[in-house]
Amino acid sequence: MTKPVRLASIGLGRWARVLAQGAQRGDVIELTSCFSRSEDSRMAFQEEFGVPRAASSLDELLSDPEIEGVLVTTPNDAHKPVILDCLDAGKAVYTDKPIAHTMEDAGDIARAAAAAGVPFAVGHSARRLGGHRAMKQWIDDGRLGKVSLAEANFSNERGLELTTDTWRFFADKSPGGALIQLGVHHADNLQYLLGPVASVTSHARKLYTDAEVPDAIMSILEFESGPLGYLGTGWASPGVYQLRLQGTEANLFYDLDFNNWDQSQHADDKSTLVSQAYRESERPQVEMPKTDMFREQLDEFALAIRGEAEIEVGAEEAIRALAVVHAALESSQRRGEAVDLAPMVEMAGALA
Amino acid sequence: MTKPVRLASIGLGRWARVLAQGAQRGDVIELTSCFSRSEDSRMAFQEEFGVPRAASSLDELLSDPEIEGVLVTTPNDAHKPVILDCLDAGKAVYTDKPIAHTMEDAGDIARAAAAAGVPFAVGHSARRLGGHRAMKQWIDDGRLGKVSLAEANFSNERGLELTTDTWRFFADKSPGGALIQLGVHHADNLQYLLGPVASVTSHARKLYTDAEVPDAIMSILEFESGPLGYLGTGWASPGVYQLRLQGTEANLFYDLDFNNWDQSQHADDKSTLVSQAYRESERPQVEMPKTDMFREQLDEFALAIRGEAEIEVGAEEAIRALAVVHAALESSQRRGEAVDLAPMVEMAGALA
Repeated sequence: MTKPVRLASIGLGRWARVLAQGAQRGDVIELTSCFSRSEDSRMAFQEEFGVPRAASSLDELLSDPEIEGVLVTTPNDAHKPVILDCLDAGKAVYTDKPIAHTMEDAGDIARAAAAAGVPFAVGHSARRLGGHRAMKQWIDDGRLGKVSLAEANFSNERGLELTTDTWRFFADKSPGGALIQLGVHHADNLQYLLGPVASVTSHARKLYTDAEVPDAIMSILEFESGPLGYLGTGWASPGVYQLRLQGTEANLFYDLDFNNWDQSQHADDKSTLVSQAYRESERPQVEMPKTDMFREQLDEFALAIRGEAEIEVGAEEAIRALAVVHAALESSQRRGEAVDLAPMVEMAGALA
Repeated sequence: MTKPVRLASIGLGRWARVLAQGAQRGDVIELTSCFSRSEDSRMAFQEEFGVPRAASSLDELLSDPEIEGVLVTTPNDAHKPVILDCLDAGKAVYTDKPIAHTMEDAGDIARAAAAAGVPFAVGHSARRLGGHRAMKQWIDDGRLGKVSLAEANFSNERGLELTTDTWRFFADKSPGGALIQLGVHHADNLQYLLGPVASVTSHARKLYTDAEVPDAIMSILEFESGPLGYLGTGWASPGVYQLRLQGTEANLFYDLDFNNWDQSQHADDKSTLVSQAYRESERPQVEMPKTDMFREQLDEFALAIRGEAEIEVGAEEAIRALAVVHAALESSQRRGEAVDLAPMVEMAGALA
């Protein structure tokens, strides 16, 4: 690579800063510009990350010929208009997960990205955690044997803190609450590990949050490959991030200490991934590759712009993860009756 | 208590021996007689446990006026005829879990026990584990705050070993497979901790077992008190026994090493029960009371015969646990649609 890939950040909230830190841990990306509607946010972002310029409008940013791609971290319900403008301007697009708040927007974004023919990446970063990479290796190596049960949980206390000042409070902007914000990570992780989900069965409850969205959601996933999966997510307890696999040869238990999540080069420093064999009380620690999920996904995106990498999580993977969320919400309206994913994924145009 | 309570064991398989060991760890019970159809089994049982006599028929055993109560460990589908005969003879009855294989048999047994007016106990012993007692204390003390999610799993490899030589192979004798044999423990534990289940949503699959019954079952439980519960159970992996509670004040994670289960005075020796507070990476070990579930439940049963104890798990609790199993099986036939428990429990006559 001759010189760094020039990217611009759009939407300069907390998550833009976490990503900028990730980008700056590598040497592939140069943050060249940025935009948010708040001038204060632009100035603060420029100063913190040494970004040479800021745009006072999205149009101004997109007309900058030096910018090769954008990092979108606007609220979920604002993804579509921003991303479509970026694609229209010929910029490669990385967007935070979920790809959008609705399947309709997700489909529109996927079709626009395919038509634009530029790299398009979605920030389902969690599958890059060392623990998940090791689990995938065990499955592929046959060390787990045949998997029957997979259980995942991603929860924290955010639901107890939500006020009307944040878009996450509102059901039309963040449908599914904890499930679309947290659980969607495991919806991708589980499909990364076990292949496509066939159907989702779910119950959702709004127990202790003041927000409009549920803070306790449990789903059972039927995988096309045979196993059953469980996805639990809550917004009213100390933080949990766990994934367990039960196979005919061994079990794996992954438990990540969420306190290091933002600094993803340290995300697995306090994680435990242990294996369990038959009739053994000891559960040896499994070696995990050292990863840095935010840096790696952004480096990959930037290198893909130069034709030097392939995007691992694009529109199709993101739509399959979002479809789990919306199938769960539909199922919870039908007292748990299973909702098939294939028609939802097809309708969003991802199987074309 | 002046002298030991004289009990007789009926059905002299592996579980009768585990229970006899439990009874003999205490000084409340004297195993006075025993019965199984196999003379070899009777002689071996007499010798191993120093039981003074054996009966060559159930009638002979039940006509022995010295015997105050019986311990029934026959196959699940043979509970009803044996238990009804015992109750008819005026004997107090302890039966292994589940109370029966069908709700119909369970209801008949419950009504007969109520009519007989003698102590009737069901071996849902697991709630007596030190870890569950500590969890209950945390809930009652308010240290967990308000619970939103409860997750439980009980699995082992038994499904991979089943042959037509065992009644557990057959769907009509052991409906639900791993769920009725293992999961039913957590169906009781979860209701012990969080109160009655309102509905069950479930998927069941027969993946890797040769038996007629499912070896992978996942259920979502709606509790009347508000929280959601998950119950996972499998029969095709190394053994798992876990229960987790997420509350607004703290989380609790219980993980029991199943290798010590049979010797229940040591069941929790390798268990971990840890708590999680907000923003703390450390998870301190929670003190668990030292318990011996098999000894304690049998001592309680024996003392109840003398009017010196109350039965903790009787027909109603056992029917509520079995109803979770049958609601799950019905739900799995309806693609996960929730099945209400109240009508099933009422039909079995436990709310009378």
